[in-house]
Amino acid sequence: MENILSNVLTNVEFSAVYNMLSLGIASMLFTSIFLWFARDRVLPKYRLAVMVSATVTSIAAYHYFRMFDSFNAAYGHEGAMDAVSAFAHYNVGYRYVDWFLTVPLLLVELVAVLGLAKDIQSSLLKRLVPAAALMIVLGYPGDVKSNLFGLDNSMWGLLSTIPFLYILYVLWFEMSKSLDKQTEKVRKMFLGLRLLLIATWGVYPITFVLSMNSATVPTGMEVVYREVGYSIADILAKCLFGLIIFSIARIKSAEDDKNFAAQEGH
Amino acid sequence: MENILSNVLTNVEFSAVYNMLSLGIASMLFTSIFLWFARDRVLPKYRLAVMVSATVTSIAAYHYFRMFDSFNAAYGHEGAMDAVSAFAHYNVGYRYVDWFLTVPLLLVELVAVLGLAKDIQSSLLKRLVPAAALMIVLGYPGDVKSNLFGLDNSMWGLLSTIPFLYILYVLWFEMSKSLDKQTEKVRKMFLGLRLLLIATWGVYPITFVLSMNSATVPTGMEVVYREVGYSIADILAKCLFGLIIFSIARIKSAEDDKNFAAQEGH
Repeated sequence: MENILSNVLTNVEFSAVYNMLSLGIASMLFTSIFLWFARDRVLPKYRLAVMVSATVTSIAAYHYFRMFDSFNAAYGHEGAMDAVSAFAHYNVGYRYVDWFLTVPLLLVELVAVLGLAKDIQSSLLKRLVPAAALMIVLGYPGDVKSNLFGLDNSMWGLLSTIPFLYILYVLWFEMSKSLDKQTEKVRKMFLGLRLLLIATWGVYPITFVLSMNSATVPTGMEVVYREVGYSIADILAKCLFGLIIFSIARIKSAEDDKNFAAQEGH
Repeated sequence: MENILSNVLTNVEFSAVYNMLSLGIASMLFTSIFLWFARDRVLPKYRLAVMVSATVTSIAAYHYFRMFDSFNAAYGHEGAMDAVSAFAHYNVGYRYVDWFLTVPLLLVELVAVLGLAKDIQSSLLKRLVPAAALMIVLGYPGDVKSNLFGLDNSMWGLLSTIPFLYILYVLWFEMSKSLDKQTEKVRKMFLGLRLLLIATWGVYPITFVLSMNSATVPTGMEVVYREVGYSIADILAKCLFGLIIFSIARIKSAEDDKNFAAQEGH
């Protein structure tokens, strides 16, 4: 079949990104609604962690709506007539604005759900949140191939890795001390969660590096890899992550309060 | 009367699908709103099951809005001028993305509402949820007639039947043990629910097989059978199913707690 859905992408390429972005909308939007309602199903001290999870997926839902429309306007059959123009019209900024807001908040969720002493929690967040924001800010000039300040994309990618490594250090070394006070069940879930975070964050640099080869304008398949890769990583890192945070909050609520456990059938 | 609603379908064909998709929107949207509010009318331990039911119909409501718009854009009188182009523009992906998210969640509802011991529940879900997701993923390449990996649509349909049979096995053999602890009333409703699930799921392969005969582009009547068949099955499998889940949760709440029963007039 001819390319009738897009002037730049094949039908299969166009549909793959289109449906993946729609899956992104659905996943983010309904995880949000579920988590907003579900906050009552944990003890008050864990509700903020669940609400931050709901905020993250809500912010992402907004950006996926925008990206879906932007992709249609750029790559749809009423959109751009060539790859250069389509690439220029598709707004990469939505992803980075989304990450700038959500990635620091993901670390807030992770720390908040453990119910640590306030001073430990605040000391962890004071280091994790700025590092996460910095990581995203430094990644953006590389991803849009801006050559800002005369630095090429690989340099910006490298700079963005420094706060990333610092976050790894804090999560793996500093936070391990705080885990001793958690029960076996919670510790296991936290370790899984931390691994999920790193595994899904790994998708971003891999996608970044893969799409670095294309000089200025990505080919159709590069558009597909990039959008599909980022979307799957986002869904795992935000929806699945948020739902695991909710499960940890449920388990900790049941551990803290026998009445709650009986009432909720734990 | 001439075809004045669509360039490809007769007026009757076009209206049948158009109104059926709108019925889908109305059913999904207002079952969702009802269930979100109604979650308070069961005991806390059954609320998650009702909330998952509400999530399922909410996800479907989103997709029915999208399908309605996509159908109009493809088959409406301002849409495609021929059947090939109309078929390409109508996005089949929405149904599969919807099922990919909702079918595993339907099994979560079904297991959650029984209030089983946590380890039994988790063991059932660990097998049912991936099998359901796999069933949908394997069905998609067949339904869009992609010949992915050189396999034709009947092969993909067949592959997708394997996880389907596994789900049947788990629901019929493994879960029967868990039913012994339920009261007569709940057991009866569960058996009805399981039958509803299988009966409505049966519509999908039947529609799949019926539309397999058409080589690449379906005739007008094939479009009608397919969309009407899938929509009726969806409404029964999600709205009716969710409302029965809610009824079971009400009955179990009344059985568990005399105060609740008196208060709610049971």
